[in-house]
Amino acid sequence: MTATNPAIPKNVEGGLESVRVITETLRIVTDKRLELYNLTERVADIVKRHDIKEGMVLLSSLHTTVALFVNEWQSALLHDIKGMLNKVVSAKDEWRHNDPQHSDCDRMNADSHLRALLLGHSLTLQISGGEVVLGQWQRILMAELDGPRARSLRVQIFGIS
Amino acid sequence: MTATNPAIPKNVEGGLESVRVITETLRIVTDKRLELYNLTERVADIVKRHDIKEGMVLLSSLHTTVALFVNEWQSALLHDIKGMLNKVVSAKDEWRHNDPQHSDCDRMNADSHLRALLLGHSLTLQISGGEVVLGQWQRILMAELDGPRARSLRVQIFGIS
Amino acid sequence: MTATNPAIPKNVEGGLESVRVITETLRIVTDKRLELYNLTERVADIVKRHDIKEGMVLLSSLHTTVALFVNEWQSALLHDIKGMLNKVVSAKDEWRHNDPQHSDCDRMNADSHLRALLLGHSLTLQISGGEVVLGQWQRILMAELDGPRARSLRVQIFGIS
Repeated sequence: MTATNPAIPKNVEGGLESVRVITETLRIVTDKRLELYNLTERVADIVKRHDIKEGMVLLSSLHTTVALFVNEWQSALLHDIKGMLNKVVSAKDEWRHNDPQHSDCDRMNADSHLRALLLGHSLTLQISGGEVVLGQWQRILMAELDGPRARSLRVQIFGIS
Repeated sequence: MTATNPAIPKNVEGGLESVRVITETLRIVTDKRLELYNLTERVADIVKRHDIKEGMVLLSSLHTTVALFVNEWQSALLHDIKGMLNKVVSAKDEWRHNDPQHSDCDRMNADSHLRALLLGHSLTLQISGGEVVLGQWQRILMAELDGPRARSLRVQIFGIS
Repeated sequence: MTATNPAIPKNVEGGLESVRVITETLRIVTDKRLELYNLTERVADIVKRHDIKEGMVLLSSLHTTVALFVNEWQSALLHDIKGMLNKVVSAKDEWRHNDPQHSDCDRMNADSHLRALLLGHSLTLQISGGEVVLGQWQRILMAELDGPRARSLRVQIFGIS
């Protein structure tokens, strides 16, 4: 590891401001059992609509079989993400959550729950200059792991104007 | 993906308030090597006890073999989560961390560390109306990955009254 | 689960303070395709340099093949983390992202993307008494998953003085 630049303050320092907290709900109707959705623009639009200059946006799934993560939005890669999820947690293994002798859930979705906890249910992203901070290839992705369903995400913006 | 509703502001907008930061420590004595614990009520109680109306709660493990995540609390599923962890990271593989020739750690807990970093060591949850925001089936779970031990979690509440 | 202590407020309660948001960029030049870096001191130094007493630090990768997580910094364990990543997501599988018929990316880095989303692209850590809160063995680790490259992380400090 070589530190090319010692970390240089970027003078994006908010003075002594008062904080604001803003909440919205994002609704997504999914159309497959396992599918990925690009929420980048919708989250960016919500942030731009409010006058929060510096702060963070917390995006939270309200479901146990929906996950959120940041990565590239490229169709070949989306195919691989689904392939990886199918491989790391097979839907065909004998999960107890799918067994009527042990579980009152009849959705046969053990794999959906298990994949969700490997990916994570929420994302915290920085806001700077009134916009969500993302690298060149970074996009906000939602994984539907047990669709099709109507899903809700809660978006909380937290920062100073 | 169909957007049923464009994101509608929910008018949960805090005005120009001053922020408060409150910290507590949650102590859990675990009783197995690999076990899951439901911390939902304890975290919810801490949040309710303080007068933070809108904001977030950051729950952080202070250990390298304890993880936190959100999912459903159902006994069949808990069995499957442990099964999945055992399968994705086998305790029986020849890990160098367990080899006295390479490691001064004699706990034989390489699998515990590796499972911890797949699940994550912290959770950030939204607070709204003075309560932790969780979906209908969402619960706050702690994974003990190398117990039994006495464990500490740090709970930070951050928001406006 | 036994609660030894009911959660006792630690009196680390900031009064009604105004919040400050500070941002820096951390630059790291990596030297291998798959390698782990210990960023603990650099992040701790940034936090100490600013007068934020209570709050949080949000560390965000700006890349789709760099991940961040918290675990122990021990050379045998670092070897095992890389071994685990190689095993859970094999570079040799036939990923579509690596196939010129389906992808315009010629880096052959499908495995890098897939490993990144299992580990996560950001970390939120607590600040208390002006310092990053970490347990005895916890360190802040960055995983380079497709190096060597010049990488940027954005550090946002959010809190009260």
